[in-house]
Amino acid sequence: MKNKIAVLGAGSWGSILASVLVQNGHDVSLWTRHTDQANEINQKHTNQRYLKNYQYPSNLKATADLKQALTAAQIILFSVPTPAIRDVATQVAKILQEQNNQPLIAHASKGLEQNTHLRISQILEIAIPQSQCQAIVALSGPSHAEEVARQDPTLITAASTDLDAAKRIQDVFMNNYFRVYTNTDLIGVEIGAALKNVIALGVGALHGLGYGDNAKAALMTRGLAEISRLGVALGANPLTFTGLSGVGDLIVTCTSVHSRNWRAGDQIGRGQNPADVIANMGMVVEGVKTCQSAYELAQQENIEMPIVEATYDVLYNHANIDKVAADLMQREGKAEL
Amino acid sequence: MKNKIAVLGAGSWGSILASVLVQNGHDVSLWTRHTDQANEINQKHTNQRYLKNYQYPSNLKATADLKQALTAAQIILFSVPTPAIRDVATQVAKILQEQNNQPLIAHASKGLEQNTHLRISQILEIAIPQSQCQAIVALSGPSHAEEVARQDPTLITAASTDLDAAKRIQDVFMNNYFRVYTNTDLIGVEIGAALKNVIALGVGALHGLGYGDNAKAALMTRGLAEISRLGVALGANPLTFTGLSGVGDLIVTCTSVHSRNWRAGDQIGRGQNPADVIANMGMVVEGVKTCQSAYELAQQENIEMPIVEATYDVLYNHANIDKVAADLMQREGKAEL
Repeated sequence: MKNKIAVLGAGSWGSILASVLVQNGHDVSLWTRHTDQANEINQKHTNQRYLKNYQYPSNLKATADLKQALTAAQIILFSVPTPAIRDVATQVAKILQEQNNQPLIAHASKGLEQNTHLRISQILEIAIPQSQCQAIVALSGPSHAEEVARQDPTLITAASTDLDAAKRIQDVFMNNYFRVYTNTDLIGVEIGAALKNVIALGVGALHGLGYGDNAKAALMTRGLAEISRLGVALGANPLTFTGLSGVGDLIVTCTSVHSRNWRAGDQIGRGQNPADVIANMGMVVEGVKTCQSAYELAQQENIEMPIVEATYDVLYNHANIDKVAADLMQREGKAEL
Repeated sequence: MKNKIAVLGAGSWGSILASVLVQNGHDVSLWTRHTDQANEINQKHTNQRYLKNYQYPSNLKATADLKQALTAAQIILFSVPTPAIRDVATQVAKILQEQNNQPLIAHASKGLEQNTHLRISQILEIAIPQSQCQAIVALSGPSHAEEVARQDPTLITAASTDLDAAKRIQDVFMNNYFRVYTNTDLIGVEIGAALKNVIALGVGALHGLGYGDNAKAALMTRGLAEISRLGVALGANPLTFTGLSGVGDLIVTCTSVHSRNWRAGDQIGRGQNPADVIANMGMVVEGVKTCQSAYELAQQENIEMPIVEATYDVLYNHANIDKVAADLMQREGKAEL
């Protein structure tokens, strides 16, 4: 069944998800703040700043007019950076009220809001009144946009406390190379999605410092354990962290050259100043802000998160990265579970 | 406290573990079947067939005389390939009886016995009477020998149903770059260790076929799920599979160029005949035999293990690898947990 879908945010991931939906036969309107970007997508069917050399379907329509993008939308997919979610959602809520529309809301963003430490779906829930929203679904998993662009098989999770809503998102995205699994543990999926970026910073830093694969695999394993500890304290199902949005996304983010967070960590590990690295990345490094939120959440919930703490100390407290990494790898051996 | 330790098997892993123990101040006797190899280690302090250019500590003593290696041993560490475990353990049992010795037994082998499907500790338990063995400990985790050789930080698990035994193994190995965690779930640690080699074959094959990081991360995630299903059916704690000997070892084996199983899979994915690849590897590819045992165990326990089945079909049934991989990646999307 053909759906009218608004995709908000035309970065690498939002634009490629819009492209998948168009290929699946849906009527998609891709919103971006930037008129020149919308024009490029409409006229040249490219989005050079994000996905070099990828040709989008010619029937993918982009617009810088949010009201136009949302008109008659049955599904809205948010794919904007975490710091922009609240602002965009507030604008969306206003338009949905004007248009008297109550669509299904999905998002593919990964992070925690600064200061409030809210998950993306919590921000959306606050900004968009229940009367304008059927349900909220989070889409997450090991999924580099560049690989989805070349139709390389990709498996991800659609999570919602409302299983029917997750199934609807599964239906609109599913095709022969984009495979969607449902999960009702929204908390676990969103916490895994947000926190893996922090671990990727740490693994990148170990790489930059010259550590090997054993050390990096150990950091990922212990990282998964601390993400899981935090998630369970917040109400998640521990098994979610063994799934696509947990360990799957962690693996792809921590072992692949495509990952911005890994690349930022690598440069910091090589001795560059964290502030300079972040300023020079050109794209949002979600793990940096998420690290602060995760650090504060861990303090608040009294959860032991040594990797998050170590990363926080390097990013925010000018800690010596060689010493922090050595201390982390030499913590007292104890029982594993 | 200085221990007299016999390490049996002088491959990459056994010889480097012996080296760690010598560096930690223990009195180590490294046994190999091959007199020339023992001579090389004793005279040149090298083991070129396995760890090129690594210089072993000059006080590491090797011998081809099993009786001599075992004399007064307080700990015996088995590090021989799975198919040789029963035979070597039977010889060891006889000597221990003659010498009236009851040491602590550890092993660092990864696999399941063919036909019987027994885990390594089960084979040891059968071959060595209780009167000659204090307890059995399995050592496993993300640990390429090459990296331990250059003292790159490595975290692994020592597992035993007898926690004190696991702690003793932790104590003898622990130093500033080799960190050991204890775990009492021997079944989970051994199943994870054995089965990850099968998943590594599959991930290598996907790489050889040209699949990307998204697909490989998904296969690892779904692979971990099926290892966990089998392990739990056999009595393991599901959380063990999220630890160093589970996901940690899986990550390092499936993402690193050092892994024999990954390399064998890669070559098979590129279209080479599985039998030729295995014959030409020069070292044991444990995943190939383990795949058969895991396949039979899954049938016997009635556990759904699609990745093991697919790998089995390619290795043993001449199945078309392109079709098998495509079918596996396109299985019907469903609930994740």
